[in-house]
Amino acid sequence: MAEISLTDLGGLIGGEVAGDGTTLIRTAAAFDAADADTITFADTAKVLKRVSASKAGAVIVPRDFSGSAETNLVYSDHPRLAFARALHFFFPSRKPATGISPRASIGENFEAGQDVSIGPLVCIGDNVAVGHRVVIYPGAVIGAGVIIGDDTVIYPNVVIIDGCRIGCRSIIHAGTVIGSDGYGFVPDGETHFKIPQTGIVQIDDDVEIGALNTIDRATFGRTWIKSGVKTDNQVHIGHNVIIGENSLVVAQVGIAGSTGIGRHVTLAGQAGIAGHIQIGDNAIIGPQAGVTRSVAEGQVVSGTPEMPHRLWLKVCRIMPRLPEIKKRIERLEVMANKSAGKDAQKPQNR
Amino acid sequence: MAEISLTDLGGLIGGEVAGDGTTLIRTAAAFDAADADTITFADTAKVLKRVSASKAGAVIVPRDFSGSAETNLVYSDHPRLAFARALHFFFPSRKPATGISPRASIGENFEAGQDVSIGPLVCIGDNVAVGHRVVIYPGAVIGAGVIIGDDTVIYPNVVIIDGCRIGCRSIIHAGTVIGSDGYGFVPDGETHFKIPQTGIVQIDDDVEIGALNTIDRATFGRTWIKSGVKTDNQVHIGHNVIIGENSLVVAQVGIAGSTGIGRHVTLAGQAGIAGHIQIGDNAIIGPQAGVTRSVAEGQVVSGTPEMPHRLWLKVCRIMPRLPEIKKRIERLEVMANKSAGKDAQKPQNR
Amino acid sequence: MAEISLTDLGGLIGGEVAGDGTTLIRTAAAFDAADADTITFADTAKVLKRVSASKAGAVIVPRDFSGSAETNLVYSDHPRLAFARALHFFFPSRKPATGISPRASIGENFEAGQDVSIGPLVCIGDNVAVGHRVVIYPGAVIGAGVIIGDDTVIYPNVVIIDGCRIGCRSIIHAGTVIGSDGYGFVPDGETHFKIPQTGIVQIDDDVEIGALNTIDRATFGRTWIKSGVKTDNQVHIGHNVIIGENSLVVAQVGIAGSTGIGRHVTLAGQAGIAGHIQIGDNAIIGPQAGVTRSVAEGQVVSGTPEMPHRLWLKVCRIMPRLPEIKKRIERLEVMANKSAGKDAQKPQNR
Repeated sequence: MAEISLTDLGGLIGGEVAGDGTTLIRTAAAFDAADADTITFADTAKVLKRVSASKAGAVIVPRDFSGSAETNLVYSDHPRLAFARALHFFFPSRKPATGISPRASIGENFEAGQDVSIGPLVCIGDNVAVGHRVVIYPGAVIGAGVIIGDDTVIYPNVVIIDGCRIGCRSIIHAGTVIGSDGYGFVPDGETHFKIPQTGIVQIDDDVEIGALNTIDRATFGRTWIKSGVKTDNQVHIGHNVIIGENSLVVAQVGIAGSTGIGRHVTLAGQAGIAGHIQIGDNAIIGPQAGVTRSVAEGQVVSGTPEMPHRLWLKVCRIMPRLPEIKKRIERLEVMANKSAGKDAQKPQNR
Repeated sequence: MAEISLTDLGGLIGGEVAGDGTTLIRTAAAFDAADADTITFADTAKVLKRVSASKAGAVIVPRDFSGSAETNLVYSDHPRLAFARALHFFFPSRKPATGISPRASIGENFEAGQDVSIGPLVCIGDNVAVGHRVVIYPGAVIGAGVIIGDDTVIYPNVVIIDGCRIGCRSIIHAGTVIGSDGYGFVPDGETHFKIPQTGIVQIDDDVEIGALNTIDRATFGRTWIKSGVKTDNQVHIGHNVIIGENSLVVAQVGIAGSTGIGRHVTLAGQAGIAGHIQIGDNAIIGPQAGVTRSVAEGQVVSGTPEMPHRLWLKVCRIMPRLPEIKKRIERLEVMANKSAGKDAQKPQNR
Repeated sequence: MAEISLTDLGGLIGGEVAGDGTTLIRTAAAFDAADADTITFADTAKVLKRVSASKAGAVIVPRDFSGSAETNLVYSDHPRLAFARALHFFFPSRKPATGISPRASIGENFEAGQDVSIGPLVCIGDNVAVGHRVVIYPGAVIGAGVIIGDDTVIYPNVVIIDGCRIGCRSIIHAGTVIGSDGYGFVPDGETHFKIPQTGIVQIDDDVEIGALNTIDRATFGRTWIKSGVKTDNQVHIGHNVIIGENSLVVAQVGIAGSTGIGRHVTLAGQAGIAGHIQIGDNAIIGPQAGVTRSVAEGQVVSGTPEMPHRLWLKVCRIMPRLPEIKKRIERLEVMANKSAGKDAQKPQNR
C-alpha cells in the first residue's frame, strides 16, 4: 500500500499544507470514513462546519476556509479536484500483466507498441495497430483495420467493428459496441432496403465511453466523438453524429443520426435528441428531455417538448394542478354563463 | 419427459386434489393449450367460467372456486404460484455438463466448489472463488478477486469486473456488466478529471439480474443489490445505489448514483430515478416516470414530474384536452372583456 | 475497387441513363462529395436545384426532373433506392474468410451448410444447425439446438440462447441477446417466485436486429419477430411479443410482454409500449411516447399518455404556455369575482 508524507502529497495534488507535513498518509476516503492516516476533503458549508471535529490525517479545504482545526489542512483552489488526484495516487488504475496472451486470437499484420496487454480470449482482426501500453481485456473483439492510440484501455467484451479509430488515453467500458451499422433503410414497396453504412467511428483522445454503449458507424465519413467526451452507460449514438470536445452524455441518452452536439454540452440521463439538429456549445439538456429542434449555445432546456429549463420548472409545478385548474375554468364558465344569462335576460326585461 | 401422478404433483405444488389422483400428468401449459396429460390453472373470473369446458388433466383453481368440472381440480391458496411450481417440475432449468472446460482461461488460485460448470471460452481472473454447483456459461469474463456463491448461474458474455461479490442462488443474464466504473468526474477547467471508482458491487442471494444491465461499482464502499431483487433487461444502476430486499426493477429503468431504493419497491419500465434520493419501502413508481425527489414509504407515484398516481391519471385525462381548455379560456376572456366593456361603458351611459 | 460503365450500372440499379453511358463509375457518394467517377443522387427540391452545378459522374434524379445538367443523369422512380443499390455494388458487405476457425468451440452434432464462416472464439452448443453462407463473428455464443437460416450474419459477441430460431438473410448486430428469460414472477409472500420461461424466440427472414438488443424467450410458445422487421440499437422486446412483417423499431424502444405489433408499424425512438396490448398495422408511434392502450390500424399517436399525433403537436405548443394560461385564469377569476361582487351588491342597491 502506498505511503506518502503530507508535504509530498500536497505537492502532488497541488495544495498548500498547513500543519504537520511529516504526517504519513496511506489512503484517501470520504469525510466520515477518514482516519488518522487518511486524506479527505470538505467543500460544502455543511461539511466544512464539521472539519474541526475530523479525525482525518488531513482535510483538503478551499483557500478561503477560515475555520480552525486540530487536524492538518491542505488549502486548494479546487478541493474536489485535489482529492480526486489523491485518489489516483492511492488507487492507481488496475493494470493487468503486459504481453499478448497465447489464448488471444491475433490476425495478420498486427502492429503493437511497447508494453501492451492483450488478454486471453481477445480476438484481433487483420491489420490492426495499437499504441504503447494499450490494454485490451478478455473477450474484446477488435475488427480488421482498427487503430487504437497509446495508453487506451478496452474493457472486457467490447466490440470495435472494422476500420474504426480510437485515440490515446481513452477508456472503453465493458460490452460497448463501436462501429455497428447505422440504422438506415429506404422504402422498397412494403419492405425496407438496407443502405450500406460505408463510414467509420472515430473516437479522439481522453474520451471515456461507458458500459454497453452503442456508437454506430457513419453512412459516409465518420461518426465522431471528440477529445475529452465522457459518456455514461447505455448511451446510444446514431450514425454521423458529432460530439464536441469535453461534452458529457449521461446514462441511457439516445442521439439520433446526423445530429451535432457542441463542445462542453451536458445531456442528462434518458434524454432523447432527434436527428439532424444542432445542440450549441455549453448547452445543458435536462433528464428525459425530448429535444426535437436545435438548441442555441449556452441554453438550458428541459422537458418534452424541450423548453427553457426555468419555464419547464414552472410547467412542472402547474402540471399536477391541471385538475384543479380545469375545475376553476368550469366555475368561471358557470359564473360567466349566469352573468351572460342575466345580460341576455336584461333586454327582455326592458 | 417427466411423468407424475396428480396426487404426487398436488403434494409437490401445495394443492388439494379433487378428482382422480392417479391421473398421469406429463406437462404444464396455458389454459387454452392444456390437454388430457396437462396441468393448467385458472384464477380470473373470465377463465374460471370456462373451467367446466376444459379438457386439461387438471386445473388449479382458487380455494373458493365453487364451480363444477368434469376435469380434475387442484384447490390452492395461490393458483398461479402452484402452477409456477408445476412448471419448475416439468421444465427444470437447463444445466450444462459439470466440469471446467479446457477451453476456458482460468487464472491463478481459482477456488471452485463441487460440481461447478465452467464453459468454454470463459475467462476467470486470479484469486476468484465460486461456490458449489455454480454455472458460468461461455464467453463470461470474471475479474480478479470476484466471489460467487453456491448455485448461482452466470449466463454467456456477462462481465463481472474485479472484486465484486455475487451471492447464492442468483442468476445474471447474458451480456450484463457488473462493476464497471461509476460515472464520476470533477471539473478541471474545460475538461473532466476522472474520480477513481475504488469500491465494488455486491449482489446478495436469490437475486435475478436481466440481460444487458449495467451496475456500476461504488466510488467508495459498495453498490449493493440486496436479496430477492429482480431486474428486467437493460436496467442501469449507478454507483453507490442500494436496492432493498425483493424490489422489482422493470426494463430500461435508470437509477442515478447514490440513490437508495427501499424493500419491495416496484420501478416500472423506463422510469428514471434521480441521484441522491430515497424511495421508501413498498413504493411503486410508474412507467416512464421521472422521479427527482424522495418518495415516501408505500407511495404510488407516476409522471414527470412525479406525482401521486391517481392525480397523474387525472392529469393524463386533461392533457389531451388542453387545446379545448385553451379555447374555453379564450371564450371566457371574450365574454369577460365584453362584460367589462359594458361595465366600463355603463358609467358613460349613466 | 469496382469499376462499371454507367450504362451497366443504370441497368443494375433500375434507372434510365441520359448522357454518356460509357462513363466509368468507380464509387457512390453523397451529393457534395461526388467527383467525376462518382454516382450520387438528388431527390429534394433543394438539392435538385443544384444538379446543374454537380461535377458528379452521374446524378440519379426523379423521373419528372425537368432540369438540364452538364453531367450524366439517371432517371429513376425511386432515386434514393437506386442510389442504395449503387452503394451495395460499390460497398459490398464485408465477408470474413469461409471455414470454421480451429479456435472456435463447436458442440456435438453441428450441422453447417456450404461456405459458412465461423470465427475464432465463437462458441456453438450441441445440436446446432446453420444454413449456407452463414457468418458467425468472433465471440458469439450460440446455444444448444439453435437453428440459423441461409445467408444470415451474426456479429461479434451476440448471444443466442438454447432453442431459438433465426431465419434466412437476417443480420444480428453485435452484443445482442436473443432468448434470455422473460421477466416473469409470481408473488410468494414478500418474495418473487420465478416463472420458468419455457418458450423460444423465433426470428424470420430478412430481419435486421440492432446492436445490444434484448429479445426475451416466451413463457410458452414463442416471441416472434416476423420477416422484414428492422430494429435499431438497444431495443428491448419482452416475452411473447409478436412483431408483424416489415415493422421498424427505433433505438431504445421497450415493448412489454405479450404485446402484438402489427405489420409495417413504426415505433420511434425511446417509445415505451405497455404489455398485453395491440398496435395495429401501419400505425406510427412517436418518439418517447408512452403507449398504454391498444392503437388502431393506421393511427399516428404520440405523447404520454398517447394521443393522436396532431393533437399532441397542439398540446406541445400549449405546454410551455401553461404558466401564462394559469395567469389568465387568475385574471379571469379576479374579474369574475369583481363582477359577481357587483352583481351580489346589486340586489342590495335595488
